[in-house]
Amino acid sequence: MTEFGFIEHVARLFADADRHGWEAIGDDCTVLPLGDEAIALTTDLLVEGVHFLRDGISARELGRKSLAVNLSDVAAMGLKPRATLLSVALPADVGKEWAHGFAAGYRELAAEYDVALVGGDTTASKNGITISVTAIGRGPLAHVKRRAAARAGDAIFVGGELGASAAGLEDILKGRHDSTFAAAHRNPAPQVFEGEWLGGRAEVHAMMDISDGTASDLLHILRASSCGAEITVEDIPAAKGDVATAVCGGEDYKLLFTVEAAAADELQRDFAERFGRTIHRIGRITESATPVIRWIDRGREIMPSWHGFEHF
Amino acid sequence: MTEFGFIEHVARLFADADRHGWEAIGDDCTVLPLGDEAIALTTDLLVEGVHFLRDGISARELGRKSLAVNLSDVAAMGLKPRATLLSVALPADVGKEWAHGFAAGYRELAAEYDVALVGGDTTASKNGITISVTAIGRGPLAHVKRRAAARAGDAIFVGGELGASAAGLEDILKGRHDSTFAAAHRNPAPQVFEGEWLGGRAEVHAMMDISDGTASDLLHILRASSCGAEITVEDIPAAKGDVATAVCGGEDYKLLFTVEAAAADELQRDFAERFGRTIHRIGRITESATPVIRWIDRGREIMPSWHGFEHF
Repeated sequence: MTEFGFIEHVARLFADADRHGWEAIGDDCTVLPLGDEAIALTTDLLVEGVHFLRDGISARELGRKSLAVNLSDVAAMGLKPRATLLSVALPADVGKEWAHGFAAGYRELAAEYDVALVGGDTTASKNGITISVTAIGRGPLAHVKRRAAARAGDAIFVGGELGASAAGLEDILKGRHDSTFAAAHRNPAPQVFEGEWLGGRAEVHAMMDISDGTASDLLHILRASSCGAEITVEDIPAAKGDVATAVCGGEDYKLLFTVEAAAADELQRDFAERFGRTIHRIGRITESATPVIRWIDRGREIMPSWHGFEHF
Repeated sequence: MTEFGFIEHVARLFADADRHGWEAIGDDCTVLPLGDEAIALTTDLLVEGVHFLRDGISARELGRKSLAVNLSDVAAMGLKPRATLLSVALPADVGKEWAHGFAAGYRELAAEYDVALVGGDTTASKNGITISVTAIGRGPLAHVKRRAAARAGDAIFVGGELGASAAGLEDILKGRHDSTFAAAHRNPAPQVFEGEWLGGRAEVHAMMDISDGTASDLLHILRASSCGAEITVEDIPAAKGDVATAVCGGEDYKLLFTVEAAAADELQRDFAERFGRTIHRIGRITESATPVIRWIDRGREIMPSWHGFEHF
């Protein structure tokens, strides 16, 4: 049974259950509206041998990354992450040094974004390290961005260069642990402040974070919003110059969002002024009966076999 | 590094962090007050080979139990559990039948208590099954029960018979899978309705659920409330007639709570009327400079070496 089949199966079993105010599954977080406010929750499981190899990442880096991927999910909703729960299963061969390194990395990134630790669980493990983080966001309900909010005509943006993490994983698997890309893979920078800022901009319609590559993640927005997309291949900000890696590589944790076309240039200017970096306009949302991406390379449609990242 | 050392270490690292309104760690849930309301969160990790053996519990029972232990934590706060997040790491040798059985059990117990599934994560695993559940409670802030609220003179109650789960684990390890106790171990009944009802009673002071045995768990209340306890050994409702198993055995998931002495008899009557079962008065909270339990057996203090359950 594949992991995706299991998620869908469980969600179907709960299709008729009262959700007690919580919104349906389908965004980076689940949202509970409370008057004008929203609480958002997300959870991620990191498993040794699946999401990381113990000799491929330091304990400190893994502590940072475990938190980063969850903060990225909250940011993708347009909200500020405020608190987390951390659960860890530790095998007997994990010593105090590793555990303290992990905790230090987690604390370090939490301090950068002023995120509290408010609970969790720790247990022994017979089989490798498992980490479960639940992150909690809070903010104005009106700021919440959902995957279903893209509209035909919207400009499509990504929040930074793409493919650095995938290039880094390639380096690491070849034994090159010291490259800039390898560092980006081990130590991703979630766009926490950027997500919260974009949450406050009404011209931003749909938003999510890129964890499996744009070629795959953009489809989630297209399906949820019942539309299509045209991507201008030469506008994709490929970190390593290689477009396939940029759109198929996993774990970039950059924001992917759609913007009211008439307001796109101004948003781009305001973002650059606020953050000293640019966001990248890579295409537009189209009317389409099926959720497909058309790739336009210097004016001509190409048919690449680009698809998203799957964990090894 | 023991699991307990890790929790304490991480909590210390966050001692100076802004908690953004969330209460300090130390209860069965962490609580966010929102005006007159409270949101409560708890999370538990269940690891194959540590918390369960795949041939010792059916998939359906494990689905129920994974949810039950978290609902019990919300009930112990005096609140109603409303929603959960479910994350599962599944190895390749887990087939569709197991996964569907697990999902069915989880759904079944969720239906009994009207609890929604609002998110989660599923991933592959190289090393056994890991389950992480986060449960969310909601209710009046005034109903929230904390471990630190016990007062000298309070009557100490437990919500049902103790030791059934431990006796069941013993049966299972001896190959007796069909005993009543074995069923209680595999399929614990969290006191969800009872916890919410007790939350509405102001004469209930401190409350928690018994997961590691009263001999161990009561110490959490005593430490948090800076007091001691006297337990009347002959009043302990031992499921198997054996007091040591009743107070040292794990995973009973019965409520443990303290009650204003003058109101204790009436509460006991009201509970019996409401639920058709009795709660058991087992002793009283005492003034004490150190958080110790005195065990009084037919009027005479005894000095047993009773301690809490540790997972194998």
